[in-house]
Amino acid sequence: MTGRGFVLALSGGIGGAKLALGLCRVLPPGALTVVANTGDDFTHLGLSISPDLDTLLYTLAGIDNPATGWGRRDESWTFMAALETLGGETWFRLGDGDLATHVERTRRLRAGESLSSITDDFRRRLGITARLLPMSDDPVRTRLLTDEGWLDFQDYFVRRRCAPAVRKIVFEGAAAARPQPQFRAALADDDLRLVVICPSNPLISIDPILAVAGVRDALKACPAPVVAVSPIIAGRAVKGPTAKMMAELGLPVDAAAVARHYAGLIDCFIVDEADGPALDGVEVATVAARTLMESMADRETLARVVLNAAGARQR
Amino acid sequence: MTGRGFVLALSGGIGGAKLALGLCRVLPPGALTVVANTGDDFTHLGLSISPDLDTLLYTLAGIDNPATGWGRRDESWTFMAALETLGGETWFRLGDGDLATHVERTRRLRAGESLSSITDDFRRRLGITARLLPMSDDPVRTRLLTDEGWLDFQDYFVRRRCAPAVRKIVFEGAAAARPQPQFRAALADDDLRLVVICPSNPLISIDPILAVAGVRDALKACPAPVVAVSPIIAGRAVKGPTAKMMAELGLPVDAAAVARHYAGLIDCFIVDEADGPALDGVEVATVAARTLMESMADRETLARVVLNAAGARQR
Repeated sequence: MTGRGFVLALSGGIGGAKLALGLCRVLPPGALTVVANTGDDFTHLGLSISPDLDTLLYTLAGIDNPATGWGRRDESWTFMAALETLGGETWFRLGDGDLATHVERTRRLRAGESLSSITDDFRRRLGITARLLPMSDDPVRTRLLTDEGWLDFQDYFVRRRCAPAVRKIVFEGAAAARPQPQFRAALADDDLRLVVICPSNPLISIDPILAVAGVRDALKACPAPVVAVSPIIAGRAVKGPTAKMMAELGLPVDAAAVARHYAGLIDCFIVDEADGPALDGVEVATVAARTLMESMADRETLARVVLNAAGARQR
Repeated sequence: MTGRGFVLALSGGIGGAKLALGLCRVLPPGALTVVANTGDDFTHLGLSISPDLDTLLYTLAGIDNPATGWGRRDESWTFMAALETLGGETWFRLGDGDLATHVERTRRLRAGESLSSITDDFRRRLGITARLLPMSDDPVRTRLLTDEGWLDFQDYFVRRRCAPAVRKIVFEGAAAARPQPQFRAALADDDLRLVVICPSNPLISIDPILAVAGVRDALKACPAPVVAVSPIIAGRAVKGPTAKMMAELGLPVDAAAVARHYAGLIDCFIVDEADGPALDGVEVATVAARTLMESMADRETLARVVLNAAGARQR
């Protein structure tokens, strides 16, 4: 499995990026393409910010901040302190080094370059051998209907710290958005050996990717096996609001609910050894493994589990 | 002189800002209005940068960097290092704290606020009691014809480090630019007691202010005395390209040439004790004083010299 063809990984931020890094390290150079959710993207302080792309860039480049799960390591915060003095908005924390990504990306977007092209240049400059693609170069914006009304994603996620109860999630622009061309081509490529749905939040990190026009059908039609990794371990999310959102939307908070969420799309589901392998009401093949990725060895081991599971599941 | 009325100071960056700070400290709160050159303003990395306004903001707030003469003290440089990694332009150095000024100003300008209004808010938040005004809210751009062709100001000043020989200087947009309304009103205000032309580069810091539509005539007509301070001491500029530019434009490099440059506009000229008080071919009254401002006491002493000179020179 690791010797031929390429692997396509669909990912949100933190948890997804950890597995993407594991895959990148165990696969040959150039054999991994990571597609990032851009539904969280927004404009803040006049800057175009792509949180999941950035987390993937920093994680794959080995310059991520392990303490926060977002932003860069060895970061300084002089900008935020000065901005506060000037009365600027400080609810979204932008480190000084991180700011370079946003300022330079914004400048290049305004000059007419695509998000794909800028991202590809950034990942090369950061020494990343995996391809990294936004799910689309067209804007898709995740919005949430909550018990406090409609909220833009970052208003909900950062400013309100996921406190409001979620009633509904929409991906504005997704139906009209074109999949990033290399992403679309990859799904029909004979060399595609595996699609991995990373252990990201299915509702706000993976669903936006699936909502981009044609992606769900292309995934169903793609000849390569599709393997998803559960982001839920023993009824809890490792990080973030996945469990809380699932409960608010009336879903059981367990790995089986995630597997059912992906029903019809996936060929294999990797659950934590605490939860599986058998899952109630789940007909797809399951593989139990340690899914908590604390060390680099954990990331690589889980990546190998995913690749092996796929090897046994050719469509 | 220090008890009544207000003082209007015309200033560029470093040298002008030092005297502006001295004036601010010896005058009663609110008795100083500083008008800044905005001919150096430019857009860089998508950010609206106003170098002289910023130097004045930082200097008057006591957060300027005494080592460089521009930017903020206790600055960090994480942004520039990260930008370089991403292949961004790094010839114009932007500190992390300084960046907050540019990002927030750019955001507010794009939202439709005037440069005046933003600057006034910034100076209040930084605890500056003096009013600080851009010479105009309309764009004026200093450009230089050099032996390497036409250069935008920052290309000449920062990127080329003033190396090309200057043949001609123009202030694009100045003839159509309206003076900032409070600036225009101040020049006709009965409470105006004194206009100070700070020891800034006459050719690229003061001339752009004088070039704004109506300013030169308003200054000639204004009832208050106008006092200029020489930026040249013993044939040399304290900092910057003043001397080099004067020579390239065929002017003698001495204080007298600066006084003649302001002929018809000023009522009194303050020269360094190394140069005066008598100046060849200069008919305006001159006062000799120590004009080098190394310490805070130097700034305050020179400010008092300026105020006293004016007191003896009512029009």
